[in-house]
Amino acid sequence: MSFVAKPQSMSFEQPLLLQSGATLHSYQLSYETYGELNADKSNAVLICHALNASHHVAGVYENQTNSEGWWDSMIGPGKALDTNRFFVIGVNNLGSCFGSTGPMYQNPQTGKINGADFPVVTVEDWVASQERLIQALGINKLAAVMGGSLGGMQALSWTLQYPQQVEHAIVIASAPNLTAENIAFNEVARRAIVTDPDFHGGHFYEHHVLPQRGLKIARMLGHITYLSDDVMNTKFGRALQNGDSYQYTTQDIEFEIESYLRHQASKFSEYFDANTYLLITRALDYFDPARHYGGNLTMALAKARAKFLLVSFTTDWRFAPSRSREMVKALMDNKLLVTYAEIDAPHGHDAFLMEDARYLAIIRNYFDRIAQTIQEASE
Amino acid sequence: MSFVAKPQSMSFEQPLLLQSGATLHSYQLSYETYGELNADKSNAVLICHALNASHHVAGVYENQTNSEGWWDSMIGPGKALDTNRFFVIGVNNLGSCFGSTGPMYQNPQTGKINGADFPVVTVEDWVASQERLIQALGINKLAAVMGGSLGGMQALSWTLQYPQQVEHAIVIASAPNLTAENIAFNEVARRAIVTDPDFHGGHFYEHHVLPQRGLKIARMLGHITYLSDDVMNTKFGRALQNGDSYQYTTQDIEFEIESYLRHQASKFSEYFDANTYLLITRALDYFDPARHYGGNLTMALAKARAKFLLVSFTTDWRFAPSRSREMVKALMDNKLLVTYAEIDAPHGHDAFLMEDARYLAIIRNYFDRIAQTIQEASE
Repeated sequence: MSFVAKPQSMSFEQPLLLQSGATLHSYQLSYETYGELNADKSNAVLICHALNASHHVAGVYENQTNSEGWWDSMIGPGKALDTNRFFVIGVNNLGSCFGSTGPMYQNPQTGKINGADFPVVTVEDWVASQERLIQALGINKLAAVMGGSLGGMQALSWTLQYPQQVEHAIVIASAPNLTAENIAFNEVARRAIVTDPDFHGGHFYEHHVLPQRGLKIARMLGHITYLSDDVMNTKFGRALQNGDSYQYTTQDIEFEIESYLRHQASKFSEYFDANTYLLITRALDYFDPARHYGGNLTMALAKARAKFLLVSFTTDWRFAPSRSREMVKALMDNKLLVTYAEIDAPHGHDAFLMEDARYLAIIRNYFDRIAQTIQEASE
Repeated sequence: MSFVAKPQSMSFEQPLLLQSGATLHSYQLSYETYGELNADKSNAVLICHALNASHHVAGVYENQTNSEGWWDSMIGPGKALDTNRFFVIGVNNLGSCFGSTGPMYQNPQTGKINGADFPVVTVEDWVASQERLIQALGINKLAAVMGGSLGGMQALSWTLQYPQQVEHAIVIASAPNLTAENIAFNEVARRAIVTDPDFHGGHFYEHHVLPQRGLKIARMLGHITYLSDDVMNTKFGRALQNGDSYQYTTQDIEFEIESYLRHQASKFSEYFDANTYLLITRALDYFDPARHYGGNLTMALAKARAKFLLVSFTTDWRFAPSRSREMVKALMDNKLLVTYAEIDAPHGHDAFLMEDARYLAIIRNYFDRIAQTIQEASE
């Protein structure tokens, strides 16, 4: 049993100018914190989430079974990121559907659900909104910002947008931008949602329906790309759902893998917002710090001042090790301090959420070193 | 300009017992032939098609521009498979939508469109129906049977179902069965079709609608998996559709790759039958000759008597070279004559349809050798 976590919320009344040119006049962020901020305010670690996660990063909610945070294996008292030593902050991104301002909530100015009218947000916008939260919590400089996948893109962007405010960036299973193939997968997911007749151009709330058919397709597809071919073969292979004879059916379940994917998709479509899915996949597509430098990542990362830990996983074909190595090279070109670990794990992209002893040991050692530096500075 | 091809059709009144236990009381096959059958009837080559292709393998239709057969780069007078020397047969599979008996045609017994009532057909059923066509054309033994992808599965199955009737099998970009990941991709495509409200359980013909939304999603997804990450990066990369500024949109096209996929999907949904898509992806899922041998492929292939050419492509992640190597090993375990070429091509699974000089040279040389043997035997 893990410790008890308590969600909080903070309102921001100062308008936020977004990358798109639109303005959010005010907004709320859901967040959680674990551990205690030290007297120097030098032990804060911000965790950035990926596509479908939230501010509930670690711990459990009181009297709710199965409510472990999404990175509970990583974060907690005595864990790799030790909340006895660090003050850890989880935050739900703008545009998401777990309490922070987004498409499924009312616009206070119009009284209507935002729906598709909610503006497009980017990784840079998220980081800007997170920075205000950090300031509001009285923190001038983060000991570390950490994230996997899209969370890793935010960690990287922090070091470029607020280079003086990040001591360490931990960028896991991430990439400096998406490849055409990844954009293509995102586009299939979006088309499945947008062409669902229950989507109503993103204003389905008013019609009291949910585009669950589209969301399910999006989730099934996403799920496949988070796993590796290997782990799917080990876990499911060609096992049949019923006995060992073919039923000869095209519409019913025949293989176990089909049953698993349908079940996961069904659960997901019950709680996840369709407009959020569009927004977050688009934020992934758009992230590309080298874009304003003619594709030169070394030049794009020249602003960074943080020290870096990058981690990738060999069977991750969505955010392949080669993409991490591009970042390592560009950071080293800039003479920044970089530690890089490439872990031979079978779980594909999802490995960053798994309890792999080698992976957790690397994170633990890295934070041990940070904790030691903080300790020395306060003595 | 290629030679002129002419589609033909043959009716079969003898019932065909299918693997599922169902019976097709009678059926029609669309086919084409190119070149001349020699006096010994020893120069016939059967071409088996993959998911969305047809009997129109080579040549063009009279007065129809852009009507090249799908393997026209490979087959024709003086080409790698030379129709001046070989009698080549293309056939549309049962259950498909290009003239052979399938879901979108009337059941002569009931007068109704078959729709979802058309029985599930397998690779083995296709081969059995093809064998009757070959017999009807007066051919006892094929000089070769050749196919790529699902077509390669049919070529392999020919050597197991009719070992005495195949001299050579040419199995390109294929596999001895699908992995869990491949089944999973097929399942996403099927769910997109089946959950389209216009699908009506597969009886959409009666409702005068087509489940085009689902078909488009299926096609977009399929298309991604036929290409390699590399070729998509080279061809599209992160190029934007309009200028070089982001439009900040989640529902409209932003990247070129999105425009390309939507266009391909739209074309496909105009002509391809949704029930056929379900049937053919299921035939892919079901193919697994080792299934009745506890997964032992060597035992499963012991019946084969043909000589084999296998070809795979390095960037094909859907039917990876490792899957071809499994077949090569099992065939060699059985002391069969096997030639194997692994071609370092960038085009992913689609490479088997491309004009790659090395690839075409291998096929040409192999057929030259066959032609020489035929020549010697007739002297």
